[in-house]
Amino acid sequence: MTLNIKNLLNPKIKLSKMGEFQELQPIEGLQISAISADLYGDGRDDLTLFYFNEGANFAAVYTTSKVTSASINWNLNLKRHFIKALMVNTKNANTFTGIKGAQGLKEIAQSLAKNLTLKASQSKEGVSEVVKLKDLLFASTGVIGEDFPSTKIINRIPELVKRLRTEQNKYVWFKAASAIMTTDTRPKVAYEECKIGNKLIKISGIAKGSGMIYPNMATMLAFIFTDANIPSVFLKAILKKVVSTTFNSITVDGDTSTNDMVGIFATGKAKNSKIYNVLDPKLQDFEKALHRLSLNLAKQIVVDGEGAKKFISVNVIGARSTRMAKNVGFSIANSPLFKTAVAGEDPNWGRIAMAIGKSGENVIQNKIQIKIGNYLVAEQSKMVKNYNESDIKKYMKWDSIDIEVNLNIGNESYTVYTCDFTHDYIDINADYRN
Amino acid sequence: MTLNIKNLLNPKIKLSKMGEFQELQPIEGLQISAISADLYGDGRDDLTLFYFNEGANFAAVYTTSKVTSASINWNLNLKRHFIKALMVNTKNANTFTGIKGAQGLKEIAQSLAKNLTLKASQSKEGVSEVVKLKDLLFASTGVIGEDFPSTKIINRIPELVKRLRTEQNKYVWFKAASAIMTTDTRPKVAYEECKIGNKLIKISGIAKGSGMIYPNMATMLAFIFTDANIPSVFLKAILKKVVSTTFNSITVDGDTSTNDMVGIFATGKAKNSKIYNVLDPKLQDFEKALHRLSLNLAKQIVVDGEGAKKFISVNVIGARSTRMAKNVGFSIANSPLFKTAVAGEDPNWGRIAMAIGKSGENVIQNKIQIKIGNYLVAEQSKMVKNYNESDIKKYMKWDSIDIEVNLNIGNESYTVYTCDFTHDYIDINADYRN
Repeated sequence: MTLNIKNLLNPKIKLSKMGEFQELQPIEGLQISAISADLYGDGRDDLTLFYFNEGANFAAVYTTSKVTSASINWNLNLKRHFIKALMVNTKNANTFTGIKGAQGLKEIAQSLAKNLTLKASQSKEGVSEVVKLKDLLFASTGVIGEDFPSTKIINRIPELVKRLRTEQNKYVWFKAASAIMTTDTRPKVAYEECKIGNKLIKISGIAKGSGMIYPNMATMLAFIFTDANIPSVFLKAILKKVVSTTFNSITVDGDTSTNDMVGIFATGKAKNSKIYNVLDPKLQDFEKALHRLSLNLAKQIVVDGEGAKKFISVNVIGARSTRMAKNVGFSIANSPLFKTAVAGEDPNWGRIAMAIGKSGENVIQNKIQIKIGNYLVAEQSKMVKNYNESDIKKYMKWDSIDIEVNLNIGNESYTVYTCDFTHDYIDINADYRN
Repeated sequence: MTLNIKNLLNPKIKLSKMGEFQELQPIEGLQISAISADLYGDGRDDLTLFYFNEGANFAAVYTTSKVTSASINWNLNLKRHFIKALMVNTKNANTFTGIKGAQGLKEIAQSLAKNLTLKASQSKEGVSEVVKLKDLLFASTGVIGEDFPSTKIINRIPELVKRLRTEQNKYVWFKAASAIMTTDTRPKVAYEECKIGNKLIKISGIAKGSGMIYPNMATMLAFIFTDANIPSVFLKAILKKVVSTTFNSITVDGDTSTNDMVGIFATGKAKNSKIYNVLDPKLQDFEKALHRLSLNLAKQIVVDGEGAKKFISVNVIGARSTRMAKNVGFSIANSPLFKTAVAGEDPNWGRIAMAIGKSGENVIQNKIQIKIGNYLVAEQSKMVKNYNESDIKKYMKWDSIDIEVNLNIGNESYTVYTCDFTHDYIDINADYRN
């Protein structure tokens, strides 16, 4: 396929890299458009619309922060599980923007509803249902505390709606995944297939996160689209379960955004037989596929973490509970001392021991075993006898580092994914204006 | 006073800076020596002994980490409140050193007890009491997981004991405060006086912390000596109270050491009238003096934080509880995004809002007020109307930055002290071996 570089307006994307990405398949019942409202001032795409002309079941999980964006508040207030459209803007998080931010969002919603209703009435498909405010979801990512540019966005809504296309080739997905980026260096896309009964189900997902631009913060957004026919309440149950070991198992710097959102949208066009029970065995294959896709996107976010040079997996096993394993894993993965040691390719397992200890979990020091790659480095509260630092230093030069901590006091486990902590992290976050 | 530079063996200390430090006064009943066991291989002082020939009441607080040093375990097992000596070594933390580390420490204690008993029997003061193992306290700081060099230390104990001097001039304190350093760039000393009844009480304190050398971590040690006559149980109560708003209110990188210890030792030589009650008004002045001294030392640790260029105070007021104020304060002070923004002299208050939100505390977004220095930057969930970034950018160039967050939902407050997050932090912790 030939790419028109002029249409791919996000200057950060290396087109030459497109071949590295998974090819996403079209989801029936979904239309996509991405355009520029010139929020960045450089003409890059910053406004994306996902439209379900016959609606979609949906479920979402949001940031646990007590300081939240107007768009998160809008979505939470909807209390609905069937929607018509999702609009995403970048550059401005619409957080700490006061009443004006909320009002601006409402005006955007009114304009979007009006334009989508107009489109529906004009469609050949004869679907002429009115699109209402409560049919709309929003996500924002970018600067906190700056005036929300609602007028600029509203002015572009007719064009955004006009450009909606049913066609979803590789380029369309790539463009949408790029339009939701802030300082990400590459778009994040993933595709999976599965079966529900005898029907083939497609799942296409995009995500953004971990880059940042002044005065901005890492915001994790992920949107997953499928043609499966699954009730929203079951989507929610499956999504929550999948997120707990995928998107919730990653950390770049331990800072939680005010705008995080993971949403799944199901158009039902695959026409699989109706699901009456979340424990229906027919859903198992779907859950596994969704897990693969989510873990794939989550890992892409970590790999693109600010300044990241190395991908780190911290696998905690032998814990009394998943919660214990998770706490110990995050205590290690969020430790600046551990992360700088990895950046320095230094097999500094003492910092892993420190981070296990500070987790607050009731571990037993004598039982802990620490592995770097396949090398056991410490057990019985001391360094192993055959510790060979030169071998482990060689291993530390790899791009992907595996740490395993066996607490040896139970059977539960959890894996956390993170990246190293480099000079570039400081550059991105401190020196941006200089 | 003339300094003999050859006796001041820690090459990190800038002698020319000595004039900047507070002059500590001698504490009667205390003898000090600091020598080199050549643990670093460069001849710097690394072994320090504090000896109380007639004993001292003491109280201590230790790291909350579940992974602890053999020296911490030794002290916790003593279950005593009256001791004869405290020995401190640097370079090796004696953590994750297994049974050998604990045995090495016991051998050191046996040698130290023997040598101190010998000294006592030879003293002109005629005090010939036997020094027992349970009369001894230990602190270690340095590398985790490397073999503990107990033989090297034992070989130097006769000399360490021989060099004990009652004289405690400025130089002796400076030498002791330097001998307990790891990668600190300057010794930390503080002195206060107060009255208990009509008696003048002296309090001299030293501390170390926040530097690190491969494969090492920040360890915070503080030792405070006074001639006050106060029972250990009251010392403990006062110390715990004072530590909660001084040493426990600082953070450099959120990583908790396995070896942290703050101890206070009271020789009783001031001969103040006996204290029968921790609420005795005569203790109020002492508590205030101890608080000033502890806050002074704690701030010195932050100022000397790895790579620190700026000192940051985060004052959270209007909270429902001290715990809420503390959690919000540490959520800000431990946020890499906030700390890198300060390093970049960027008044990025959106990151303060983010960190308040992620604290997990039940704040009310609309009520939060954020101040940078004397500038109110955000309230009612938005930026203030008269926000003048150029003024605030000028303020951000200062060496000491004050942040105030008013949650406006209660009357409790807490102040956290931290430093910025700079390239040098990464250099110190990642690139040390290159």
